[in-house]
Amino acid sequence: MLDALFRPRGVAVIGASTKELHIGNRVIKNLIDFGYKGEIYPINPKADEIRGLKAYKSILDVPGPVDVVHMVIPAKFVPQAVEDCGKKGVKHIIINSGGFSEIGPKGAAIEKDFLERAAKYGIRIFGPNCQGIINSDPDIRAYCNFTFTYPDPGYISIVALSGGVAEVIHQGFSSMGVGTRIYASNGNACDITIPEIIRYLGDDEGTRVVVTYVEGLRDPEAFMEAATEVAAIKPVLAMKAGRTAEGAKAAASHTGGLAKEDIATDLIFQKAGILDFRDEGELINAAAAFASQPIPKGDRVGIITNTGGPAVIATDVLVAAGLKMPPLSEKTEAFLKERLYPEASVHNPVDVLATGTAEHYRACLDAMMDDDNFDCVFVNFVTPFFVDTESIAKQIVEVSKQQRKPIVCNLMTDRRQWTETVRILQEGGVPCFALPSEAARAMAAMVRYRRILDRDKGTVKNFADVDTKAARDIISQAKAAGRRMLTAAEVYGICDAYKIPTASWAVADSAEKAVKAADKIGYPVVVKADSESIVHKSDMGAVALNLENGEAVAEAIKQMQAKFDASDLQFLIQQFTPGGLEVILGAKAEPGLGHIIMFGLGGIYVEVLKDVVFNLTPVTDAEADGMLASIKGAALLDGVRGQAGVNKEQLAETIQRLSRLVSDCPEIVELDLNPVMAFEKEIRAVDARIAIE
Amino acid sequence: MLDALFRPRGVAVIGASTKELHIGNRVIKNLIDFGYKGEIYPINPKADEIRGLKAYKSILDVPGPVDVVHMVIPAKFVPQAVEDCGKKGVKHIIINSGGFSEIGPKGAAIEKDFLERAAKYGIRIFGPNCQGIINSDPDIRAYCNFTFTYPDPGYISIVALSGGVAEVIHQGFSSMGVGTRIYASNGNACDITIPEIIRYLGDDEGTRVVVTYVEGLRDPEAFMEAATEVAAIKPVLAMKAGRTAEGAKAAASHTGGLAKEDIATDLIFQKAGILDFRDEGELINAAAAFASQPIPKGDRVGIITNTGGPAVIATDVLVAAGLKMPPLSEKTEAFLKERLYPEASVHNPVDVLATGTAEHYRACLDAMMDDDNFDCVFVNFVTPFFVDTESIAKQIVEVSKQQRKPIVCNLMTDRRQWTETVRILQEGGVPCFALPSEAARAMAAMVRYRRILDRDKGTVKNFADVDTKAARDIISQAKAAGRRMLTAAEVYGICDAYKIPTASWAVADSAEKAVKAADKIGYPVVVKADSESIVHKSDMGAVALNLENGEAVAEAIKQMQAKFDASDLQFLIQQFTPGGLEVILGAKAEPGLGHIIMFGLGGIYVEVLKDVVFNLTPVTDAEADGMLASIKGAALLDGVRGQAGVNKEQLAETIQRLSRLVSDCPEIVELDLNPVMAFEKEIRAVDARIAIE
Repeated sequence: MLDALFRPRGVAVIGASTKELHIGNRVIKNLIDFGYKGEIYPINPKADEIRGLKAYKSILDVPGPVDVVHMVIPAKFVPQAVEDCGKKGVKHIIINSGGFSEIGPKGAAIEKDFLERAAKYGIRIFGPNCQGIINSDPDIRAYCNFTFTYPDPGYISIVALSGGVAEVIHQGFSSMGVGTRIYASNGNACDITIPEIIRYLGDDEGTRVVVTYVEGLRDPEAFMEAATEVAAIKPVLAMKAGRTAEGAKAAASHTGGLAKEDIATDLIFQKAGILDFRDEGELINAAAAFASQPIPKGDRVGIITNTGGPAVIATDVLVAAGLKMPPLSEKTEAFLKERLYPEASVHNPVDVLATGTAEHYRACLDAMMDDDNFDCVFVNFVTPFFVDTESIAKQIVEVSKQQRKPIVCNLMTDRRQWTETVRILQEGGVPCFALPSEAARAMAAMVRYRRILDRDKGTVKNFADVDTKAARDIISQAKAAGRRMLTAAEVYGICDAYKIPTASWAVADSAEKAVKAADKIGYPVVVKADSESIVHKSDMGAVALNLENGEAVAEAIKQMQAKFDASDLQFLIQQFTPGGLEVILGAKAEPGLGHIIMFGLGGIYVEVLKDVVFNLTPVTDAEADGMLASIKGAALLDGVRGQAGVNKEQLAETIQRLSRLVSDCPEIVELDLNPVMAFEKEIRAVDARIAIE
Repeated sequence: MLDALFRPRGVAVIGASTKELHIGNRVIKNLIDFGYKGEIYPINPKADEIRGLKAYKSILDVPGPVDVVHMVIPAKFVPQAVEDCGKKGVKHIIINSGGFSEIGPKGAAIEKDFLERAAKYGIRIFGPNCQGIINSDPDIRAYCNFTFTYPDPGYISIVALSGGVAEVIHQGFSSMGVGTRIYASNGNACDITIPEIIRYLGDDEGTRVVVTYVEGLRDPEAFMEAATEVAAIKPVLAMKAGRTAEGAKAAASHTGGLAKEDIATDLIFQKAGILDFRDEGELINAAAAFASQPIPKGDRVGIITNTGGPAVIATDVLVAAGLKMPPLSEKTEAFLKERLYPEASVHNPVDVLATGTAEHYRACLDAMMDDDNFDCVFVNFVTPFFVDTESIAKQIVEVSKQQRKPIVCNLMTDRRQWTETVRILQEGGVPCFALPSEAARAMAAMVRYRRILDRDKGTVKNFADVDTKAARDIISQAKAAGRRMLTAAEVYGICDAYKIPTASWAVADSAEKAVKAADKIGYPVVVKADSESIVHKSDMGAVALNLENGEAVAEAIKQMQAKFDASDLQFLIQQFTPGGLEVILGAKAEPGLGHIIMFGLGGIYVEVLKDVVFNLTPVTDAEADGMLASIKGAALLDGVRGQAGVNKEQLAETIQRLSRLVSDCPEIVELDLNPVMAFEKEIRAVDARIAIE
């Protein structure tokens, strides 16, 4: 429980300093200036007072309870100081100092040392090498942090390892006049983790929106669990950086190798229901909208404007983001025709004209709140000198306070001249943006969260017909034999065990047996030479396609026997199934997280165009359907230009069976079904490969 | 020449009002408050003075020269007022009032009337239904406009029909502390056009950057000419809105149908060398960077930072935009190792640490300016309380003023607390942004302009071997016969005349003649029934593929004769050329602009994936090569996975021949070569269609 950390009764600073530019002084200044409601205890063996507060020689001398201790002392002194805190009964220690695991083995040893001591006393550590926390709750007002952005109380909480970006985001809210609730930047995070904090913020009633920034995830599974829980009850907004190879390298250099260029984080965000952002500005704007507005019930937006062009830009952005712009209901149209200027445009966008008054805005707002055609309202508001903009602002605030449908406001003004208008809107809790695109994207994010809440997450199907033991036995044998790549017989055996459809197959070690097998499978067949030494079968002449009879099979095998002199040489005889749509399925182990499942179009065109999608195990039925629907060439699965579609049910089922297989057999590090030939009636993998660790 | 408009010696306001909230009063207030250097003449038959200035009963009473007149009077009084202005020798009239062509025929008649009168006197009209102009040149300071954003003098000029968006952009600069030069928003633009103004801004030495916003183009060709000229000497930044159907509809409602959802505007931007933006915020930020920084010589960026995460975000954005992040030169690395803290990261990004001083920043800046590995420098600058941020800011300003390589600065601070640091940077002309992505995109835009300047625009090849007369004759005949769709013989005849490669062909009206033709072409052949009544040949059974001999040809024709009872029935006999890569080429007339030429991958996959690119006639050799390179599946043209590539030279040449054909024969409204079969040796169109007007 992190309550004592975020709502401390008393805060002591070990390493409190009399020097103004020292962090051990700044933390005390911040606590005082921010109006901390608890007791502040500077600890300094030499000073009598610091910033007007009595200083104590030791934490053990402090009279009252201390929930949080700041440590701003060299790393080597930290373990003993933790011991002292333990004796004092301290609950949490925020270690601002650096010099621990981030600098290498020597620092890591100190980290291990103090962690053991903390555990002995039940003390939880925040940091080290971190900024600290802020809680703007008027009952607490704890600024246990050495940064400089003093937030107004608000509803957005921010959590991140990286102090730099967390602070940038924090400043973003501050400069918009939007308050924040809890701020936590925990640096090395050697004990208290980001997932723990996210869960705390989920429970914190004062937090309406959780914002996080990541460069890599320490414990992806714990993150996913916590985020999934919290995202179901309040919006969780996240941004991942280090997306390019260069960015990942830059991130690794300041996080000590944690970051990498990956797709797993995106998939975690998606599966957990996190709203992911590629742009920190967009994230800031969306959070500001969530902070004060209700979640829209749907995706239909009405626009009110007093100037043309910005409404066009907003429309473009909203529509491109998938929102709908329905017409006004007849009732609304009639209502507004009576109330607005005759030249006003009574469509969606409604243009009240630059001369439009507060009454006009109010009429539009009321009508759109009443009109069942709309789920949310976008207000474009330029401030001409000839209208009473303060009254317009007041009307927007009043309607916003009703909390019936979300409102965003693109406020186009000179904020230094129209200060009162700006103040009315901001203090009234109307999310105000300076550009139509920004406001539109914030609204689009709210609709995106509605879709997350409404989405069918599906269920993980339990395939009772799979033979897990058979698959695991095959893998154990290969493992025992020291093989990393499974043989054809093993691969197809595993597929059979999990009812993953493949072209009928058999394995033979001689031409004679091969012909017999081919006779049984039925012609035409394919013959593939199989040996650990043959890696790229097609390129090496190890594949003979479309063999129409036994002689052709025998001849092909003869040639391959001549070409490949391998002791483990065997032959895979497969039904030849040309035509159909080529697709690919695959799985790849993701450390700490299960597997990534891939689906995409195959064939040469699509190899170049890279039309593939991913998901994380376990893939549910709804997620498998979603994968089919989300490739760019999805229309091909349904059939185009007179061509038949493919059996999508079986394709989706196979994705789920694959997911089940790799979940049951985590030793599988890579699995490829490439290609799978998809027909109207059925799908069949015609080439498969499995690698184990 | 628009000099008198933008640099007026005297300004009169016809419709000057004593009422404060009237535009006829506001314009005078703006001129006074902004410090206009010329004479201001309120014209009002009833008032003696307005805002402390002597008012005149008529423009004819004004003693001094009047270069610009504002008209803020009802539409019906405008024609007579224009007459008066003519008599007075006025050069330009800004008509702020509305009630003209934007309201329909009645208003359009008045517009026509005053335009004729103005022409008589050589008066140029700005507007009507517009905001007006601003020129912040300290020698002029003309605020002939009723809006409210008073700019500092600067180097960015803004021009747009839509006042709403122009004003939003203007406010964007103002709120960043970035000055502007000329502002012009000309509403209906019945006389002075956007292209004219763009050309004027090109000539204006005080303008370093031109910014424009469009929803549609009145005269695309004039726009393209002016923009091409100006973009070659200074950056022209543009944004087009109304990109979605809904956005275009919203735009049409306020511009009177000018806007439409098109690709032509994008192509104009591209061909003219305009930097196009999809986001007004990005445009504003880029313009701010151009305003004070030199154009980079290349695309290699060095980053200096005092905090980790924001540099990671910047790296991601820069790299994703195609910029390069080279390592420091050995010399730079050695130099910085001596000068920075030992814990500092002496790679790219260089991390001077939060405790980094002004000397550290200066050392990095100097080193990167000297280091030939870098063309531009990105500065990340957070303002910790424990460093002297003002000194750091001063160093950044000093180096920026050297104008050696462009600098952008991501300034992460609380601007209300660090006011002096902000002031030093802004007044020092360092483009400062509040978020790493914003700063990075601004830098990327500068590199984008460098690429435009350096690009090979290529030359329009003059194909001496084309037979224009033959093609034009065919079209004339079809036109005379009243046909919109050309027959196969006509289509392929035109292709032959322009040496556009097609599969060998002949046209026959009987089985006998068809067999003879097929014998000559060589088997296998394709037979297609050709008649105006057969629109979708494949679907209607009008195509017989892969006919291997004369009997097959005769049989196919017999069946088609039985099926199609058309008086104009003929048969196209074509060489059958299966295999190869299917591509498509096309042309479409674009009113006022020539033709749009299309190239893309064909076939069913790509029909779904829509991998096509466009350009405008005349397509140069470099542009044709660029089209081939810019499809997503470009790798297929070069050959992948052991497959041979295609004859790209011939493909590029065919694009140019097509461009030449439609330029020579503008009656062609649509032309499709679909598919063209592309082989290693040659390409051949196997189906073609031409529509004329």
